[in-house]
Order: sequence, then structure tokens, then C-alpha cells
Amino acid sequence: MTDQSFHIVFALFANLTQLDFTGPHQVFSRMPGAKISLASATGGSVKTEGGIAFSSLHKLADIEACDMICVPGGYGVTEAMADPEFIGQVTRLAKGARFVTSVCNGSLALGACGLLKGRRAACHWAWRDMLGAFGAIADEGRVVRDGHIITGGGVTAGIDFALTVVAEVVGADAAQGIQLVLEYAPAPPFNAGRPDLAPAHILAQVQANLDKSMPARRAAVRAVAEAMKP
Amino acid sequence: MTDQSFHIVFALFANLTQLDFTGPHQVFSRMPGAKISLASATGGSVKTEGGIAFSSLHKLADIEACDMICVPGGYGVTEAMADPEFIGQVTRLAKGARFVTSVCNGSLALGACGLLKGRRAACHWAWRDMLGAFGAIADEGRVVRDGHIITGGGVTAGIDFALTVVAEVVGADAAQGIQLVLEYAPAPPFNAGRPDLAPAHILAQVQANLDKSMPARRAAVRAVAEAMKP
Repeated sequence: MTDQSFHIVFALFANLTQLDFTGPHQVFSRMPGAKISLASATGGSVKTEGGIAFSSLHKLADIEACDMICVPGGYGVTEAMADPEFIGQVTRLAKGARFVTSVCNGSLALGACGLLKGRRAACHWAWRDMLGAFGAIADEGRVVRDGHIITGGGVTAGIDFALTVVAEVVGADAAQGIQLVLEYAPAPPFNAGRPDLAPAHILAQVQANLDKSMPARRAAVRAVAEAMKP
Repeated sequence: MTDQSFHIVFALFANLTQLDFTGPHQVFSRMPGAKISLASATGGSVKTEGGIAFSSLHKLADIEACDMICVPGGYGVTEAMADPEFIGQVTRLAKGARFVTSVCNGSLALGACGLLKGRRAACHWAWRDMLGAFGAIADEGRVVRDGHIITGGGVTAGIDFALTVVAEVVGADAAQGIQLVLEYAPAPPFNAGRPDLAPAHILAQVQANLDKSMPARRAAVRAVAEAMKP
């Protein structure tokens, strides 16, 4: 495998969470044989939710095929799910790919492509229950594999996801070499990274903040799922 | 503090490792009151070592002052250290900043600014011993604080570094809230993230690869340190 090229396409959209794909990108950029393309429905540039813009993007329609497609997540996923061009192109590229993948709530976009029916998938904890609308089986795992579909949990799970994929494609030695070079021996200063780990008052505070915007997002996801019904 | 603005400047350069600053950026973008600027010596755009370009950068000289300056790392740090404009501007901004920070081997650039004399600092493990050339005390910690200087270790340490800074500036609750939203409960599929943790054959393989380029980089760092001597 190491002598062959492995083409990875990140399917980007406006208002995404940049670490969802920059984490995996850093890992894959050190993978022997990897060729990485950043693409979006229209090409050009996208601005992410934290303010960083990514430009010189390919147009998804201009990419003939790839070995792996990866859809990151972010608040903008609800708009991306409702964009027929984005969903159509991701669906087309997924059909020919060896691995169909996502990070964070990017799995909802895979759901909107009709790719997760009866499949187990990961998602950001705050959005995870919405997977059911697409016939997917929500899984609490940080990296979840179901056949050729590999999905990561929220944001930072993308790094663990990418190392898992490198191990699968090139081997465990390559993955460990990349882990060492990226000095990935995490030592979070707090232990609050999951709802079951966070102190109750932190979870309550985050939840109260999410409650301001989640009803509208939840309705948008439901509308996309409804429109898919035959 | 939460009602005040806190201006963070990332000082970028060509051939940097993008995750060194995109990890912290994701954390800081959720910090109440944070205003983040991406800047470089010339403004415009920089291409990172993994291929992603960042554009619309500010010119460091155009930024009057900031609360925190952060220098990420990467292979390009040796060129950045030898660029008088980059070093001069980082030195100027550091003088008025509440926190002077780096991730990965970005601490070598702080050293080249003369900011680390007698100070403990972190660095990517493969470059750590070079800190001594600038009178700094190399520290194996993942996040190291010495007065107002806060430095992170290699690449992924930037996330732990940023959460540490948020706790310092806004408080532990805010840091934990961000950790929860970014689902930062890391679960690496391997345990090879430090030389003392990695299997011997993985370390040997990574070291052999580094040995191809490190002698030239080491010489470049020495040359910068020599030129600083009075």
C-alpha cells in the first residue's frame, strides 16, 4: 500500500468547525502515499465558524473519484445537508470510495446522503440522537466502524479517527510513527470532555447555551430527513 | 474578564505545522471576549508544511499591540528565526503582551527573540535540546509556565496549552465548557505519543527519518544563536 497513492477528499462547507478537518488533515499529511484535496460544492473559499477562511478549494464536481471522502462537522452542517449540490456530490464520490467517513456532526450529512441506513455511526454528543432520523444507529464510540463507513465523534475525535484510518490503510507502525511525530500523548488540564465526565454545573451551562440554537437545528435536520422519504 | 476583549495574535510563517495553531485557535475561538488575529511578517498568505494555505493574513507590523502572542512551530521555524522582520515584530509585540506563548518548536523562535533567557520552556521532543542555545531551560512538560511565558510541547500539545490559558484568563469553568463542546476526551488508538512511550522500533524509525534533516536544522539554530551573541 505504501507505494500507492491514496486520495482523500475533505468535503467542506461554510460555517464548519475547522478542527474537525485540520486535526485529521495533519495526521493524513504525514501518511505515506496520501494525496489530500480540499473541496466544496462551489469551490473558491469557505469561512469556518471560528473565523478562519480556507481558499483555493476544488469544486466537488471536478473530482472524478477518491479513495476516501471525509465530511467534517460544524453548525453549518444543517445548511450543507439541505444543499442538493453538496449532498449529490458527496453521494457520488462516496459510491466509488473505499472509505466513507465523517467527523463530529458530519455524520448527519452522510445520513442526508442516504448512506447510513441501518449503519452504526458516531456523532458529536449534542447532535447524536438526530442520526436516527436517517435510519442510522447512533453509537457513543469515539471512532465507530461499520463496514467501509468510519465515523468520528465530536471535533477532537478527528485525530483519533485519522490515526485509526492510517492504521487500517498503511498499518499500525505508520500510525504510531505519526502519533510520535505529532507528540500525541494528550494531557487535558481538566476532565470534562464528555457529558458523563463533565461536572454537572458545566454540562448544565453548556446545555443551556445549546438550547438557544438547537431547536432550530433539530427542526432543520428533521425537515431534510422528511424530504428524503419516498 | 469575560466582558473585556482579549486580543490573541498568532504569528505565522511559511512551512509551519498547521495543527500547532489550528488546535489552539479552535479553543480560543470559543473563549468569551477573545479576538484572534492571524498575522505574518509580510501579510498575505502562508503555505503550511501539509499543504494547506492560510490567506488574508495581517502584517505583524500593522498590529499595534496584543494581550497574547503565540508562535506555532514547524519545519519552517528555522527560516522564521533567521528573518529579522519576523523576529523583530514578535519581540515588539511580546514586550507589551500579558502572555508570551508558543506551541511545538515555536519556542525556538521565542528563544531567537531573546525572550527565554533563564526561563523554563517546552518544545517538540525532537527539537527540545536546542533551547539551550538561547539560554532557556528545556522542560519536558506538555504545558510549561514560567511567569508570563506559557509554552506547549509538540503539535497536539497546543490543545492542552490553549485550555490552560483559557482557565488562566477566563476561569476553569469556561475552559471545561470549551473542552465539553469540543468533546475533548482523547482516546488515541495507540500509546506512542512520546519517545518514552513509543515502542523502540517506532522510535528508531522516526529517529532515522529525522536524522536526514535534523543536522542542517540544528546548524541553522546554532547559527541564529551565535549571531545573537554580543
